[in-house]
Amino acid sequence: MNTASWDLLLTGATLATFDGGQPYGLIEDGALAMAGGRIAWIGPRAQLPADAQARAASVEHLDGALVTPGLVDCHTHLVFGGDRAHEFDLRLNGASYEEIARAGGGIASTVKATREADEDELFTQALPRARALLADGVTTLEIKSGYGLELESERRMLRVARRLGEALGIGVRTSFLGLHALPAEYREDRDGYVALVCDRILPALAAEGLVDAVDAFCEGIGFTREETRRVFERARSLGLPVKLHAEQLSNLEGAALVAEYDGLSADHLEYLSEDGVRAMAAKGTVAVLLPGAFYALRETKLPPIAALREHGVAMAVATDCNPGTSPLLSLRLAAGMACTLFRLTPEEALRGVTVHAARALGLDDRGTLAVGQRADLVVWQVQRPAELCYWIGGGLVRAVYCGGRRIETA
Amino acid sequence: MNTASWDLLLTGATLATFDGGQPYGLIEDGALAMAGGRIAWIGPRAQLPADAQARAASVEHLDGALVTPGLVDCHTHLVFGGDRAHEFDLRLNGASYEEIARAGGGIASTVKATREADEDELFTQALPRARALLADGVTTLEIKSGYGLELESERRMLRVARRLGEALGIGVRTSFLGLHALPAEYREDRDGYVALVCDRILPALAAEGLVDAVDAFCEGIGFTREETRRVFERARSLGLPVKLHAEQLSNLEGAALVAEYDGLSADHLEYLSEDGVRAMAAKGTVAVLLPGAFYALRETKLPPIAALREHGVAMAVATDCNPGTSPLLSLRLAAGMACTLFRLTPEEALRGVTVHAARALGLDDRGTLAVGQRADLVVWQVQRPAELCYWIGGGLVRAVYCGGRRIETA
Ligand SMILES: [Zn+2]
Ligand SMILES: [Zn+2]
Repeated sequence: MNTASWDLLLTGATLATFDGGQPYGLIEDGALAMAGGRIAWIGPRAQLPADAQARAASVEHLDGALVTPGLVDCHTHLVFGGDRAHEFDLRLNGASYEEIARAGGGIASTVKATREADEDELFTQALPRARALLADGVTTLEIKSGYGLELESERRMLRVARRLGEALGIGVRTSFLGLHALPAEYREDRDGYVALVCDRILPALAAEGLVDAVDAFCEGIGFTREETRRVFERARSLGLPVKLHAEQLSNLEGAALVAEYDGLSADHLEYLSEDGVRAMAAKGTVAVLLPGAFYALRETKLPPIAALREHGVAMAVATDCNPGTSPLLSLRLAAGMACTLFRLTPEEALRGVTVHAARALGLDDRGTLAVGQRADLVVWQVQRPAELCYWIGGGLVRAVYCGGRRIETA
Repeated sequence: MNTASWDLLLTGATLATFDGGQPYGLIEDGALAMAGGRIAWIGPRAQLPADAQARAASVEHLDGALVTPGLVDCHTHLVFGGDRAHEFDLRLNGASYEEIARAGGGIASTVKATREADEDELFTQALPRARALLADGVTTLEIKSGYGLELESERRMLRVARRLGEALGIGVRTSFLGLHALPAEYREDRDGYVALVCDRILPALAAEGLVDAVDAFCEGIGFTREETRRVFERARSLGLPVKLHAEQLSNLEGAALVAEYDGLSADHLEYLSEDGVRAMAAKGTVAVLLPGAFYALRETKLPPIAALREHGVAMAVATDCNPGTSPLLSLRLAAGMACTLFRLTPEEALRGVTVHAARALGLDDRGTLAVGQRADLVVWQVQRPAELCYWIGGGLVRAVYCGGRRIETA
């Protein structure tokens, strides 16, 4: 008799593998075995080896429940001080953006609250948000800096990001977003701020191992192409991959710029041009769609989904969780919004929160269910993949595994 | 020493009472005592009687957590067989409404699945949906019939609605919606179907105590004003209040019709006219807004919020939870959508899911926090009311009480 070589064998699962040519990579009445934190076997139950039950330390029959890869949220600003609910209230009571800005609102209020919070406070505030994403199936999470805008506060944000991953037992990837907004103290010295970010803050945080990728906000109200290029050059010299907030409110051809630097992703993209699509396709840069911000800002200009499809650009979907323009705490809801608002098919939206989101983070060990992949997976209370996009809200998660370990979600 | 006369005393709460003239009826650092399933004391903690601690069998300090009335979802089609996720998938893959209808889709597929399901199956399918609403703070729920369209199946739906309330320990109000759609077997005999509903099905179900109110779908693709009037006349003769799906896709002056019958509410209302608003104001008919259907159908015509405000018509907000046009499992998300999509203020949206929703069900014993009201309340993980509308998704509930009893939400 074999000693158990599998930690857990799941049978009777509807497996949405996002691997192979079937819609959703679907395997009906499937089985999946985990060992050592990886997927050790996957396929139709009928093809399990004869000694499968004996090989497994534990066996669970799922009665047809859907199993997907753990979801990957590849664009969040999850760590911040304060919130902007009061501003939301003021705006709906008729206050203009100018009035709110004059009252210290907008991103400046988040920068102030973030700078004032110590590391434990930032952690305590971010933890329930990370838990909410996890409770809805997220096992890997990107978190950006960008509300500190000076060395100490940016470091604090990234350290908190790392701590969240450790505390919850999920994957966290950090992005340094020094070029998010111009801090008030540099209002008269843009160049000085960009130099500070490129020459001091980024190298220091990279040396501390806090930076997995470098991001920027390339926009009329953010930073220019030339400023973005400066931080991308520094990232290259440090051996760090880049990504970009691009073409959200206007077309600065940021997508082509980030593609030029072999970027992981260009994000938002409502104003993306055909040239930008071509540049992304040529370099394999992922298009990260953020329907939560589109919804919350009541935008009407849609990203060019048809062109992205036509040129074979991989599309990811993320929450953009942030206090100003997307206080969105469910990646599954973002996927549903991508269907309803952007007309993605449920399969596209779900690839967008699994395999394509992993690719947007430069990760090839997760986002699909296949032998050798990390055993990051979600068992759902529903049986068919489209239901994950169809139901709006509700708690559909039955169990979450990350690296083969069952994660507490409540 | 007193024997305990209060079952539970909550202190240090931020109370959003929706009672009195403050925004949100807010009481900071408040206290609330429950006894015998009712609210026995409420006010600022500083005004608690000196022997308050001794009076209470149990005391809990909430550290500033927000407490609101239990939410009231006053318009749902929560009980149904099957779902329409596959249809959602087909449509996003390019199938037209006609193709889907020809393939047996649309409401006909839900009627078929509902007729085929026995009572236990309907109950088992509806239970997780009701739990999802409860987990997000709903303690009173309206549930309509209308997918049976013949006596036995309509009865089954309403019986399941009652069972859900008993199983979860929450309030359920039923609405009979025989005039929801014309069943296929009456396609050539509209009049016969309306007669069947008015003369046979409604009186039978009312006699069994299964009907709390009577509803209809007054619309070009539903039933005419005259047909609606027939069922309203029967409701009146049975002593039952009425409500109406009105002005969703066109203006049939349904709102004025339901107001003429002293209706509880007119629901949807995107095409409501100024005359309709006036008629509702004159009779105190509540306007029930259903932003989930507006969102899922990608409607652009907004209900006349300014006119409703101007004429002092109470606005409620509900999920419209149904498998075709609003598979929405969170009333808090509906309130947020009412802000983002319809530009309600957070206070209006929250009154819409509490005090005004209760009024839309003809209930005056809930929906506010005040002495003598049912002790239906939610303790939230946040501190300010606007956050309930601001955060999109996420699980913000800390505890739910219904009739003074703590309800399990997981
Ligand atoms: Zn962003
Ligand atoms: Zn309805």
